[in-house]
Amino acid sequence: MTLRLFIGNKNYSSWSMRPWVLLKQSDIAFTEVMLRFDGFSQDSAFKKGLEKVSPIGKVPVLMDEEFSVWDSLAIAEYLAEKFPEKNLWPKSIKDRARARSICAEMHNGFAALRSACPMNIEADLSHIGQIVWRDQAAVRADIARITQMWSELLNAHQGPMLFGDFSIADAFYAPVAMRIQSYALPVAPQIEAYIKRLSALPGVKAWIDQAHLESDFIAFQEPYRATP
Amino acid sequence: MTLRLFIGNKNYSSWSMRPWVLLKQSDIAFTEVMLRFDGFSQDSAFKKGLEKVSPIGKVPVLMDEEFSVWDSLAIAEYLAEKFPEKNLWPKSIKDRARARSICAEMHNGFAALRSACPMNIEADLSHIGQIVWRDQAAVRADIARITQMWSELLNAHQGPMLFGDFSIADAFYAPVAMRIQSYALPVAPQIEAYIKRLSALPGVKAWIDQAHLESDFIAFQEPYRATP
Repeated sequence: MTLRLFIGNKNYSSWSMRPWVLLKQSDIAFTEVMLRFDGFSQDSAFKKGLEKVSPIGKVPVLMDEEFSVWDSLAIAEYLAEKFPEKNLWPKSIKDRARARSICAEMHNGFAALRSACPMNIEADLSHIGQIVWRDQAAVRADIARITQMWSELLNAHQGPMLFGDFSIADAFYAPVAMRIQSYALPVAPQIEAYIKRLSALPGVKAWIDQAHLESDFIAFQEPYRATP
Repeated sequence: MTLRLFIGNKNYSSWSMRPWVLLKQSDIAFTEVMLRFDGFSQDSAFKKGLEKVSPIGKVPVLMDEEFSVWDSLAIAEYLAEKFPEKNLWPKSIKDRARARSICAEMHNGFAALRSACPMNIEADLSHIGQIVWRDQAAVRADIARITQMWSELLNAHQGPMLFGDFSIADAFYAPVAMRIQSYALPVAPQIEAYIKRLSALPGVKAWIDQAHLESDFIAFQEPYRATP
């Protein structure tokens, strides 16, 4: 069995981070295929590299031998089915439903936060975070909702992760944790503590460390930074 | 066991349509709670009606007794787990993965089509569709991708539905079929034939019929129409 995960730059690609962290943290063997974000036009090396594996030309893509699964959420579901012993979703049907509700919420929500604070693990963007926080009520509302969600789950399950043990839900919110840190968005101590625990998980830490090592400044990904 | 599905106006609410059609077409008993789109401000009756059932104030929401599942995709997964005998997802793991890939693609994609051609079942918007089709390359690209996806699946499974029998995938694309019809977007005969078959399913037809009966013109939902 060979799993190959196609991803973008570790520093920038929040959607790639989710299944990668899920695989790594769950000790599922896979090969990483990194496609650098050289551009998103049809003739970019990035798009060319995806031509044979995805009809939509986006990362992440999981290839199981020659079978392709695209989209972070479909990949998570596929892995949960293929490796039932890993308990990638929480064990009870209600916890699973709740975990899926919040993952779906992430999947098509939090537009303000995602647009104002794109993931950029290696950067200190606290000066930008300050302005965003001051000016953008929609970003504050996104963080308020995330705070409410995480607090409720951490209280209900007594941590350390959102549903007690690590699950797909934590992998799905890991990029949000990265954003809160890079942009130094003000959050409650309970939220900060969860972010620390999450970042210290070996599977998450491995991604963060490799993002730092990339040193690949891509100007179009961060118009707010003139120089690396 | 009591399932309650909270939905918005049948004529407009594409996200509500998906789980409603899924339940109806699969003969799963449920009670519908319709919240009219009177507005989306915090003091609208719509938002007030969702306060007790959803932390995000959006339809659809499924209440299983007092347990709430929000988001169309999480609801579909919950129903698939709760009613395994209904085969809401295709039976093979690969077909399921493919179905989940395309549902996830719908869940956070096709932005151009969704924004230019909001669902409006009872209206004839062919004059708007013509202008959109002429001017918006991104809408044409969305329809090209949908055509490619549907054709591939219909050919592979020999129809009548995307994965042979009716599944969550058909429920997820039903609102796209509605849009193609209302805006009279030009599609290939195979696609038109699928839309006809889909619209004729009792669960889909019931939604369409009830949308026509609503006669509830909501101006802010359709700025392009001055009068009903």
